[in-house]
Amino acid sequence: MQNIAVIGYGVVGSGTVELFEKNKEEICRKIGRDCGIKYICDLRDFPGDKYEDKLVKDFNVILNDPDIEVVAEVVGGATFAYDYTKKLLAAGKSVVTSNKELVATHGAELFAIAKEHECNYLFEASVGGGIPIIRPLNKCLAGNSIEQISGILNGTTNFILTKMIKDQMDFDSALKMAQELGYAEADPTADVEGHDACRKICILGSLAFGKHIYPQYVHCSGISRITLDDVEYAENAGYSIKLIGTVKPEGEGKISAIVCLRLVEKNSLLSQVDDVYNAITVRGDGVGDVLFYGKGAGKLPTASAVVGDIIDCLKHKDRRIMLDWEDCTDRGYVVPYKQIENSMYVRIKAENAEALKPAIGELFGKVMYLERNGRPDDELAFITPVMVEADIDSALEQLSESAEIASKIRLL
Amino acid sequence: MQNIAVIGYGVVGSGTVELFEKNKEEICRKIGRDCGIKYICDLRDFPGDKYEDKLVKDFNVILNDPDIEVVAEVVGGATFAYDYTKKLLAAGKSVVTSNKELVATHGAELFAIAKEHECNYLFEASVGGGIPIIRPLNKCLAGNSIEQISGILNGTTNFILTKMIKDQMDFDSALKMAQELGYAEADPTADVEGHDACRKICILGSLAFGKHIYPQYVHCSGISRITLDDVEYAENAGYSIKLIGTVKPEGEGKISAIVCLRLVEKNSLLSQVDDVYNAITVRGDGVGDVLFYGKGAGKLPTASAVVGDIIDCLKHKDRRIMLDWEDCTDRGYVVPYKQIENSMYVRIKAENAEALKPAIGELFGKVMYLERNGRPDDELAFITPVMVEADIDSALEQLSESAEIASKIRLL
Repeated sequence: MQNIAVIGYGVVGSGTVELFEKNKEEICRKIGRDCGIKYICDLRDFPGDKYEDKLVKDFNVILNDPDIEVVAEVVGGATFAYDYTKKLLAAGKSVVTSNKELVATHGAELFAIAKEHECNYLFEASVGGGIPIIRPLNKCLAGNSIEQISGILNGTTNFILTKMIKDQMDFDSALKMAQELGYAEADPTADVEGHDACRKICILGSLAFGKHIYPQYVHCSGISRITLDDVEYAENAGYSIKLIGTVKPEGEGKISAIVCLRLVEKNSLLSQVDDVYNAITVRGDGVGDVLFYGKGAGKLPTASAVVGDIIDCLKHKDRRIMLDWEDCTDRGYVVPYKQIENSMYVRIKAENAEALKPAIGELFGKVMYLERNGRPDDELAFITPVMVEADIDSALEQLSESAEIASKIRLL
Repeated sequence: MQNIAVIGYGVVGSGTVELFEKNKEEICRKIGRDCGIKYICDLRDFPGDKYEDKLVKDFNVILNDPDIEVVAEVVGGATFAYDYTKKLLAAGKSVVTSNKELVATHGAELFAIAKEHECNYLFEASVGGGIPIIRPLNKCLAGNSIEQISGILNGTTNFILTKMIKDQMDFDSALKMAQELGYAEADPTADVEGHDACRKICILGSLAFGKHIYPQYVHCSGISRITLDDVEYAENAGYSIKLIGTVKPEGEGKISAIVCLRLVEKNSLLSQVDDVYNAITVRGDGVGDVLFYGKGAGKLPTASAVVGDIIDCLKHKDRRIMLDWEDCTDRGYVVPYKQIENSMYVRIKAENAEALKPAIGELFGKVMYLERNGRPDDELAFITPVMVEADIDSALEQLSESAEIASKIRLL
């Protein structure tokens, strides 16, 4: 039975078709019946393509074909994809997706439609590319209270940071290299400013804590302000600098979530995750820390997760897979990041910076000063104790009367 | 509804009860109905225990109670546990287990009974303790052809190796320390000789390739013959030494599987996995390499996996979870390890060892010689090219006419 359709024949879509067709025999054995891709929907032409006979331009062909049980939506974005997904689920067809923007923006609504029409909406590919994380979090770790999820969730920025740290490249050169290698888009904003990682941590947090976390309520900063000076101080003190998404419960049914650069201790596996790789650490009250690592993006790794979801849907024909969360209209659900406690790395510039040490001690209590080769006299770098972020900020504001605050980076 | 029973109130059993009761409210929300532990079965008395009212000594109480939907078998071993599990599954009660010996020895038979009686036999806790690996391999990576699985699957031996390598302890002292800390049994044979890791790689391989791999056909060697000299040569050449279980397809529907010490490149994450931690790397044709890391044993980590499986069974009341493999009576399914290709680290002792270099070159082709501080004149260590193991062995036999073969360790 030709019961599968793929919408979007770009990188992930073509990878999905390629991987499915390559392993089709074994996949059908796992599903327990004959299955196949009937349509590939894309507005563009692909003359001479191996699967040209499956290509259609009209989405309604898929929507109206009773043979189609599951559709892979790998279009991306939250406009057409949103419309298609709603219509397919309302027609009782299961949808699997790699579209983090759509899941992070409209997940709760789409799950409700799937539930009403007794089909499934699966999204393993939306976080961590091919790394299994959605199902493990939802099923294998279901017996735990989740205490924290932290992850390197964006391969592009991790590649840039790796080049800066290991090869002493500056930010602009590393970004250029990432673009030349096809890791970064021509407009790299969504990656570099942390929006992509933000969507992913929202999805993980929504799943772990059962309520939709909307990205607009999550503080998000990127990697563009980091300097090689910061890298050097961090390295000397035994830290790597990584862009980390974090979500954790804060008591009274609230959570905190943030995406930002973090100093990560070098003796942790997370600090060893380099280049375009992703890794996600989940801390549960039973399991302790578990880590999931692999290629967080790319054609076949993402297709691996999409095809895994297709198989799961076809194995569960007419049965619901319980993988969803509730909507959350309470704007107070996400605690403002200024109210969260952190330890902060700070670098300041001031004529005769050393003379500010007593004042720094008064403002922050016991700080740890860091060093780098040839540290100029007008520079100091230190790590504060764990403090509420608003208190760190007001202390920094006072300090800014006598020094320039050149950098601040949270510790993990 | 009190619909759960736990058989075995030892470390894992008490952890299972503790974790379930702690997170009970949230767990019942996930299952979608009220659930609870009705019985704990153990032959011993636990006077004053918090859950004394649930304790029963007679297994038949559980077997004959129609309320019981799922039973956690955390007794261990393949005698009583085998008998109990067969009876429970035949009565249509789902069983979840941490018992790697039972799954590795009788898995295919037990899955068949579960299938016949439309209940489930889940075993996430049998490999990697709390690390999610069974479901990810079975579901998330289902679209891939699995090319290799390699893992550090035994925490006790990894702890001993870590102490030897990082703290320069000898084997006997490291084993004694592991016993004092409760990581190793008084009789450490199953861990130290690799039998425990062997059962686990058999389970992973059976699941990945769909046919039962019986431990007795898998070559298995332990860590007791390693010396600090080998550690030093390996470190100098950029390798860690780890006890690794490996399974991979060998074409024509056959597989190879082995548990042995391996030299692991230090730039891989697997080489960084120390102490009692476990990690498993899966290579798929779509996803590339993914790694799963965490505590591979212990009360609450293992309980985390057991409780996750209990929840999955209760969510799927009267529905089959497709997680199993077929029996395999073909003794040729596992290719003998002597026919598999490997690169081998070799250390030899011989008066004037240097003079043997031309002979070594003739026997093995181009080898890489390793160094250590103060290498004695009567010692040489080298790494062979990739060769069929039987050919390496026959070359070593020739070499043994003029030298003592002190160590040989495969590379990963």
